[in-house]
Amino acid sequence: MPTDHAPLSLRREALSSDSVAVWAMTSATRFFRPDEIAIAVELVEERLQRGAASGYEFLFAEAAGELVGYACYGLIGCTLGSYDLYWIVVDPAHQRRGIGRLLLEAAEAAIAQAGGRRVYIETSNRPVYLPTREFYLRCGYRLEALLPDYYADGDDKAILVKRLPGTTAGP
Amino acid sequence: MPTDHAPLSLRREALSSDSVAVWAMTSATRFFRPDEIAIAVELVEERLQRGAASGYEFLFAEAAGELVGYACYGLIGCTLGSYDLYWIVVDPAHQRRGIGRLLLEAAEAAIAQAGGRRVYIETSNRPVYLPTREFYLRCGYRLEALLPDYYADGDDKAILVKRLPGTTAGP
Repeated sequence: MPTDHAPLSLRREALSSDSVAVWAMTSATRFFRPDEIAIAVELVEERLQRGAASGYEFLFAEAAGELVGYACYGLIGCTLGSYDLYWIVVDPAHQRRGIGRLLLEAAEAAIAQAGGRRVYIETSNRPVYLPTREFYLRCGYRLEALLPDYYADGDDKAILVKRLPGTTAGP
Repeated sequence: MPTDHAPLSLRREALSSDSVAVWAMTSATRFFRPDEIAIAVELVEERLQRGAASGYEFLFAEAAGELVGYACYGLIGCTLGSYDLYWIVVDPAHQRRGIGRLLLEAAEAAIAQAGGRRVYIETSNRPVYLPTREFYLRCGYRLEALLPDYYADGDDKAILVKRLPGTTAGP
């Protein structure tokens, strides 16, 4: 059983045990709806079945051999160098240790190494997501666009973006 | 062989012959890149294999038994009533007859009937897409957001939206 101070390690390869671990972790947050949890697990299984062809890249954070968080991202089809960051989830028992920021920075480094230039995050603009948005803003993201009522009436979509170092600001 | 004035009919069910017809039509436009054409065909095949579970709905326009255009749209996951309109393509030999507008209006009607409230269109903001954007603006869409450099440096993404009749404007 990992302690609060067990050293963290990251791996990129998905293991068959990750499906259940991701289901357990996203459920434990009490933050995601059942349909969102189902999608989280589906992305892991897509990756297990189709490998890189799935379009989903993962970073799994482990402490003492146990999954404590993960990030999922991927190149956006028909773009040159734009990536979507789909999920960052940290096990509630291991939050407030900087694991989210570590996963985010590792994902950005992997994206930059693969030639990526921009990272997009799409999230609800509802108050319950305010800590999520503030986390990304602290990490260098900025609000690029707001789509009113996108998720439902009164539930807007916020699109955040970070341009990775070494890239130009564009015209 | 259809004449310019052959009556049009619409069908929703995908047929196995549509894969080749969609490949031929999108190629004939000389507008889409090979990777875009591959995606267009892939969506038809997803629909043929998985039916409604694919998430892709189609409207095929036929004249004298020949495919002359089609629209592809679908409910956006994790939203209540937001739809993406992925493609409208009209065979070059049958353009300027109002088939594009007919497909668009039929898609909007089908979306409204299914409980949809908003239709989104994402397209490049490059000059070559100006006629596309003008078509949608004429049909009641408005520019909701612009994401600079989304597709590539200097190639912005335009997000257009139309709120379907009977829906509120939101807060």
